[in-house]
Amino acid sequence: MSVASQYYPNEPTVPVVQTSAIPGPESVKGLEALGKVFDARPAYFLADYEKSLGNYIVDADGNSYLDLYAQIASIALGYNNPKLIEAAKSPEMIRALVDRPALGNFPSRDLEPILKKILKFAPKGQDKVWSGLSGADANELAFKAAFMYYRSKERGYHKEFSTEENTSVMRNAEPGSPHLAVLSFKKAFHGRLFASGSVTCSKPIHKLDFPAFEWPHAEYPHYQYPLAENEAANRAEDDRCLKIVEDLIKSWSIPVAALIIEPIQSEGGDNHASKYFLQALRDLTSKLGVVYIIDEVQTGVGATGKAWCHEWADIQPPVDLVTFSKKFQSAGYFFHDTLFVPNKPYRQFNTWCGEPARMIIAGAIAQEVQEKNLLEQCSRVGDYLFAKLEALRSKYPQKFQRLRGQSRGTFIAWDLPTGAERDALLKSLKLNGCNVGGCAELSVRLRPTLTFEEKHADIFIEALAKSVSEL
Amino acid sequence: MSVASQYYPNEPTVPVVQTSAIPGPESVKGLEALGKVFDARPAYFLADYEKSLGNYIVDADGNSYLDLYAQIASIALGYNNPKLIEAAKSPEMIRALVDRPALGNFPSRDLEPILKKILKFAPKGQDKVWSGLSGADANELAFKAAFMYYRSKERGYHKEFSTEENTSVMRNAEPGSPHLAVLSFKKAFHGRLFASGSVTCSKPIHKLDFPAFEWPHAEYPHYQYPLAENEAANRAEDDRCLKIVEDLIKSWSIPVAALIIEPIQSEGGDNHASKYFLQALRDLTSKLGVVYIIDEVQTGVGATGKAWCHEWADIQPPVDLVTFSKKFQSAGYFFHDTLFVPNKPYRQFNTWCGEPARMIIAGAIAQEVQEKNLLEQCSRVGDYLFAKLEALRSKYPQKFQRLRGQSRGTFIAWDLPTGAERDALLKSLKLNGCNVGGCAELSVRLRPTLTFEEKHADIFIEALAKSVSEL
Repeated sequence: MSVASQYYPNEPTVPVVQTSAIPGPESVKGLEALGKVFDARPAYFLADYEKSLGNYIVDADGNSYLDLYAQIASIALGYNNPKLIEAAKSPEMIRALVDRPALGNFPSRDLEPILKKILKFAPKGQDKVWSGLSGADANELAFKAAFMYYRSKERGYHKEFSTEENTSVMRNAEPGSPHLAVLSFKKAFHGRLFASGSVTCSKPIHKLDFPAFEWPHAEYPHYQYPLAENEAANRAEDDRCLKIVEDLIKSWSIPVAALIIEPIQSEGGDNHASKYFLQALRDLTSKLGVVYIIDEVQTGVGATGKAWCHEWADIQPPVDLVTFSKKFQSAGYFFHDTLFVPNKPYRQFNTWCGEPARMIIAGAIAQEVQEKNLLEQCSRVGDYLFAKLEALRSKYPQKFQRLRGQSRGTFIAWDLPTGAERDALLKSLKLNGCNVGGCAELSVRLRPTLTFEEKHADIFIEALAKSVSEL
Repeated sequence: MSVASQYYPNEPTVPVVQTSAIPGPESVKGLEALGKVFDARPAYFLADYEKSLGNYIVDADGNSYLDLYAQIASIALGYNNPKLIEAAKSPEMIRALVDRPALGNFPSRDLEPILKKILKFAPKGQDKVWSGLSGADANELAFKAAFMYYRSKERGYHKEFSTEENTSVMRNAEPGSPHLAVLSFKKAFHGRLFASGSVTCSKPIHKLDFPAFEWPHAEYPHYQYPLAENEAANRAEDDRCLKIVEDLIKSWSIPVAALIIEPIQSEGGDNHASKYFLQALRDLTSKLGVVYIIDEVQTGVGATGKAWCHEWADIQPPVDLVTFSKKFQSAGYFFHDTLFVPNKPYRQFNTWCGEPARMIIAGAIAQEVQEKNLLEQCSRVGDYLFAKLEALRSKYPQKFQRLRGQSRGTFIAWDLPTGAERDALLKSLKLNGCNVGGCAELSVRLRPTLTFEEKHADIFIEALAKSVSEL
């Protein structure tokens, strides 16, 4: 029996859309009421999570969609997963919710076993973890770790802070508050707070009117597809971008302490980075003494067929920090070098030091992915889905440009000729029973759960063929 | 029957400490193991939340302490509260944990009722809320709201962004990424990310080695105690500090878009601001077009005898934004002016837009505080406790300097002559069965739950008298 059937014996077998417009009348009514207390403008519909199951999300009108967006790529195992319900009802969970500990000062007896479960799922080469609350938070905590590490290499790990550092920092001035930068890439998305916002560079609307640090953005390689037919051009593109990275690090007015990159830029358009590029960044950052951070917030937890996408590149020696959130529900960063443990306590610290309720969910997700072999399944289903998309591309080459994600599980995307056509396709897909997201201006991105199977792919492909033919 | 007895018929009647040192041997062993996967250096002991109950926290050695620190002021109703356990077991909670929605794009039917419960608890004058994940996150989200508001007043709320803004922002440069500041106060604590870190100014260890925005810190009034005997001097102190605030706003090299203040600086030493001072800041910020933000992360949710501490000052017109976290478990900011709703969607936005599991807990806490009249109880118990501390102060004036928090519920603090004596007192109190926290260099701060009653105060006072006599 398939994993989805084991989890969800009553999962719908087809989507059902019974309203002529989306959102339907009940959603519209509900969103109008919600809009009085919340910003409901970005809502696609009002969801009914009681009725949602497995790969199907149900809305307030009873429409049931096959979900290939999965809460902006953050549902790992499907809706109302029985194993997660078990975790949610466990005594550890009740305690975590009711007696939320300040994990730094008064850690719970429950903490060590939970962290061990999470660490069993750590990327190759990483064996330590620090916990945060969201992708933005995870990245900013990683920046703090990187800045402390960078300065402690300059100062000496065990050296005390100088009086000048201790006084200037209280004025937000050097040397206590040093001018240091994090280098990121154009079209990157790493979050929307102020430091994470400064490395984010995908759309103006994310950042307008907010002060930012004057940090540099290099160029992320833009490949020609299919990859196999464009090897030389793409290698040249990698080298062009690497040169820009190196030049920026060497010439930027503020010392570059860290570099952060998504192995696949997701919000920014599903731009993939090659193994060669990601490895060359390791060589370069090692040479120049820059901390190497991989942002796996959207790419992590299995959807590419590896637990963590950058494992495809087998970077050696391993990168310094790997951040996570979304599908793992818990957030934070993995690391391996003990020098990233700050030289004193209370430097990487806050009241809660993470969310134990979400750590328990993360532990349960990790265990399920491992026990049910969901990485293998995702690779297999992704290959199946990709082949079907290839076939559609042969038929409609204009509507399936730059098809991306071959051999990367279900982490698949392609471009439409215009933003208007992309938007029309997404809208039509909903009416045909499939909830799918876009990214950047032209792309469709597929982000189903890890319980998405061939039978779901068939339903999606059928709806897609219909929508594309109607475009 | 008292509220504590209703909630906790089996609450211990006295603390029991059976190890000669704290942490005891089982805690030491557990923390050593935990230290291999987590920064356990700041831990006081390893806690056993299964056995903790009401106002008593139990550690791995079976020591049971009367808890006046309550997870750094973030437990509202006591450990294993039956009403919160009920909320934790509710179907809404299971859904929130298992099917965590992207609340902006796919809001749940459960969301509106939860937000309404939270809004019933909003500070006077505020009727809207936006959700975040922690105190630091809440403050940074409030900064984003303030910056958008400030710039939209300059630009015109409905005016489109210019091409120059849309392009410069992608380089982190003006005018799209404007140079704007938030003014805060010396000794303030507002969080430890990069913007929240820039307004935090209590201890160097929170900030060293991290880049900061060049934002100004004004002076927070430092009063003479008892307040009733020092009215003229304290009024002069208020005026001195107000002058500094005004001068900084008018002269700072970067335009000051917002001001953030704690009504009582907590981490920074339990420094209180007078009604006069907080109202004068409203007058000043209105006059100078600066957004007024009150940080109620530590002071909120009842511990001062009001739902929100700044309600004591009855500021008119109401402040612009009020941030919360900690004891409310959910985080975010309250507001009332619709111009703080950004002119376009996706400007105040992120994947999750808050944590529905914690919103459910917040709703349950709000309901309990209201139904059980816990504000009145906290005021009454606080007065009782304060009188007992006054009596101890008469006996040991050197050990109870600047006793603060009269008529502010149980939100009470005082100073020891030296940091070493303060630390010794906290250590001795633990051995005498009371878990108590410090703040700044010299202060003891009391932060019990809202179910702390006269009987608990008696136990604490007895332990305190013993510890002080042994100092």
